[in-house]
Order: sequence, then structure tokens, then C-alpha cells
Amino acid sequence: MKLLKYLIGATATIALLIFLGGAISKNSNPKPQKVRLSKLIIDSAQLDNYKAILKEEIEASMAKEPGVLTLYAVFERNKPTHLTILEMYADETAYQSHLKTPHFIKYKTATAKMVQALELIDTDPLIPELKIK
Amino acid sequence: MKLLKYLIGATATIALLIFLGGAISKNSNPKPQKVRLSKLIIDSAQLDNYKAILKEEIEASMAKEPGVLTLYAVFERNKPTHLTILEMYADETAYQSHLKTPHFIKYKTATAKMVQALELIDTDPLIPELKIK
Repeated sequence: MKLLKYLIGATATIALLIFLGGAISKNSNPKPQKVRLSKLIIDSAQLDNYKAILKEEIEASMAKEPGVLTLYAVFERNKPTHLTILEMYADETAYQSHLKTPHFIKYKTATAKMVQALELIDTDPLIPELKIK
Repeated sequence: MKLLKYLIGATATIALLIFLGGAISKNSNPKPQKVRLSKLIIDSAQLDNYKAILKEEIEASMAKEPGVLTLYAVFERNKPTHLTILEMYADETAYQSHLKTPHFIKYKTATAKMVQALELIDTDPLIPELKIK
């Protein structure tokens, strides 16, 4: 009977620790301090090539850089060469170190002649901590 | 000794179930089928009021509508009356039912005279399933 109580107690404690661990790791997500819109126009002849290079760069940034919180890129349906990226970085340091990563430099070099226009717009988010479900 | 083995077995099983539960709920997140940019210009005299109403509407939509995946709103730092919202819905049905919710209708009615321009831009996301960390 004593052991059964111990069993229940130990199980409940471990379950609680796992739950708390999950809750803490969820809430420790950084709130972005740098949120930007990048607007680009891409050479239509190189659009597919550009998309492949951008996809690789975004996937590497998201996987390797904890301070890159998102790089959500959308192409306008009626102007497929017009692209907007919602960029979020934990802070200015995270952004500056992003610029020095091999995957960003590779992207920047490879796409230099594909990008016909680039506008960087600093923004203030209404609800900085909002996520994508 | 037998009970100790049972204790370890039961604890491991419960931990595994909690872990699997978390993993399944993470992966069952819908991939957005409708992703849009909304661009608005707000009457500068009513900007603070507009922001409060929009914030309430976004928080209600995110909390009450599983099919509203995000409504990430950013104001341009150099043009504070210029607003872009990255809108994501699970599908067209989720969007259509969003339009009929009391919180959306309340927002739409309350801000009708504050919104000086509204452009809705349908988009194709490069990596639809990308999240905000």
C-alpha cells in the first residue's frame, strides 16, 4: 500500500515536471524586438530560381538561428513577381548576426541580379507576441 | 523489486503518452489555405482608438476561432497611419465564418469611419506551414 502511494506520487510528480517544462519552454519564447516588412520585386525570368534559393535560406535561418523568429514570405497572386516578407528577429543583435551567416551571404550573392527592387520597412507590431497557430 | 519495475514502467508509459500527445497536437496544426495581406490607412486623429478596437478584435478571433491562424498587424514606423496585416485562415470556410462573428462585425462597424483606405491582396506563401517561434 505504501509502495502504491509512492508509485502514484512519483508518477504525478514526473507528469507535473514534464507539463511545467513544456509550459516554461512555451512561455520563454522571445518577444520580437525587430519586426520588419521587406518588399521585393523579382525578375520574372528568374522567379522559380529565386524562390528555390529564398526557400533554402529561410529554412536554414529558421533551423539554425534561434533569434530568427520568422521570415514569412508571400507572393502576390495578381503580381507574382511582387514579394513581401514579414521578418521577425529577437533583437538587433540577432539580426546583425543573421547578416553574417553563410546561408544569408549565399542567398544575397546568388540573388543579387534577380532582385529588381528592395524596400525595407521598419514596423511596430500591434501585438508583438502573437503567433501563427 | 517487482513493484519498483512496475513503478518505472508506469512512469515511462505516462511520460511517453504526454510526449506523444504534445507531438500529435503540434503536427495537427492546419496548413493555411488562405493567406492575405490587408493594407490599411487610418485617420491619424483616431489612430489610438482604432488600435484598441483592432487589438480587441484580433484577440477575440485568435481565442475563439480555430480557423483564424494569425492576424499579425504591423504599423510602419515612418508612416504610423499605414498598417499591414498578415492574415491566415485555415480555409475559405473559416474566413467566411470569421466575417459573421460578433467580434468582427463589431470591429467593422466601429472602425468604418476611421479607415481611409483598404486594400486586400491575395497571396501565395512560399512556405505555408512556417510558424513564428
